[in-house]
Amino acid sequence: MAESIRMLSKNTVKFIKSLHQKKFRNQEQKFFVEGEKSVLEVLNSDFRVELLVATESFISRHNTQINSSDVQVILATQNQLESLGQYQSNDSALAVVHMKPNRAFAFPEDNFVIGLDDVRDPGNLGTIIRIADWYGIKNLVFSAQTADFYNPKVIQSSMGSFIRVNFFYADLNEVFHQWKVPIYGAFLDGKNVHKMKQIRRGVILMGNESNGIGEDLEKVVTDKVTIPGFGQAESLNVAIATAILCDNFKRLTIE
Amino acid sequence: MAESIRMLSKNTVKFIKSLHQKKFRNQEQKFFVEGEKSVLEVLNSDFRVELLVATESFISRHNTQINSSDVQVILATQNQLESLGQYQSNDSALAVVHMKPNRAFAFPEDNFVIGLDDVRDPGNLGTIIRIADWYGIKNLVFSAQTADFYNPKVIQSSMGSFIRVNFFYADLNEVFHQWKVPIYGAFLDGKNVHKMKQIRRGVILMGNESNGIGEDLEKVVTDKVTIPGFGQAESLNVAIATAILCDNFKRLTIE
Repeated sequence: MAESIRMLSKNTVKFIKSLHQKKFRNQEQKFFVEGEKSVLEVLNSDFRVELLVATESFISRHNTQINSSDVQVILATQNQLESLGQYQSNDSALAVVHMKPNRAFAFPEDNFVIGLDDVRDPGNLGTIIRIADWYGIKNLVFSAQTADFYNPKVIQSSMGSFIRVNFFYADLNEVFHQWKVPIYGAFLDGKNVHKMKQIRRGVILMGNESNGIGEDLEKVVTDKVTIPGFGQAESLNVAIATAILCDNFKRLTIE
Repeated sequence: MAESIRMLSKNTVKFIKSLHQKKFRNQEQKFFVEGEKSVLEVLNSDFRVELLVATESFISRHNTQINSSDVQVILATQNQLESLGQYQSNDSALAVVHMKPNRAFAFPEDNFVIGLDDVRDPGNLGTIIRIADWYGIKNLVFSAQTADFYNPKVIQSSMGSFIRVNFFYADLNEVFHQWKVPIYGAFLDGKNVHKMKQIRRGVILMGNESNGIGEDLEKVVTDKVTIPGFGQAESLNVAIATAILCDNFKRLTIE
């Protein structure tokens, strides 16, 4: 049963606004999620939701689900929601959620892991998380300089997929040495991914938007792979390239 | 030989700022391009450049190329450039360029055409143009409600590829009836694109970000195609899906 509904206080406004900044997210170990669909999904997930700021209409429509979760509910107007978050339009809800601990996972038996070396743009990271979820690649590992998973733009562009993936931040060099699996790195001068033979396991490693995969990390790449171009564009956006590699690799597991 | 270099006037500032809006772009039949690489590419293309607003450093570094083009050069500071355009940082140049007429092309003998039915987001359109250029698909056709090709965000996210594609806006239904080629439409319940046989020609048709391909247009789709999912995400971003379909279709032309 949910506690009684409160009104939005100045302190809560200040607290939620502070979560736009990584520094305060890390200090509090909390982040926020916006919009009807994502808020409902996070309430229904293994994330621990601390606060639900919602309009009267959202509360009455989802009364049962709200009551069955153990969350403090705060009533707000659409205008208040829009000033708290980053959505231009939000007439439903915003949830304050506890981060998960940064814990390494074991390499999966029969699947890929996506590795990101300094992918800095939050929109790219969120899109890559959505792609990973589409292709059933549930595990991702990020270099320390990769965008913050809990950045509101990452959460938004993942379209709810952030709930369904595992991830941790680490020194990729160390992690890859421990894992002892093939590391497929995206380069412009690698092996044509259309010509690859059946594979079932390994890291799909993508580099920074401007500089690609770092020199040190390049040394632990076991297979350089390339998306064949047929035209004149010099490169592809990193999220686009990730999608194409995932599509090719997943095709190879079923051929 | 370029005309003499002028200083930036208030009228020119007002004129360039008006080009942020589609209404004034259409009225003037002009748009603008920002940043060193894209400005140099457009100077070197078959687009007619009317004005080059540039820093002293850009002008001295690219003196030869500027002199060989017949363009009015206007000197500006980095601050002025940044207030004229949409780039957060621009210490090089901005070019005012003439639009091309909206003219239909004949369907290419041995290639694909990308068709977009109401793709509204300029970032998506620009990214799709870059993907088309990567895959050597030089021809695109857009429904009237698709984002404006000359929107500054489209130009920016195309990363220079806008120079190398042909396109026109039209009633897609009419155009497809005339072309009499296979229309491969992206749907969530179509044929698995991984299982398709060799094809060489046809339209790759993508729909609106929220609603997909419109009902009327669905009737002229000859082949519904689907990107197989292996996870739980409900959909993919339209630019991501376009990239994956192009990769699969281009693979089929060479198998």
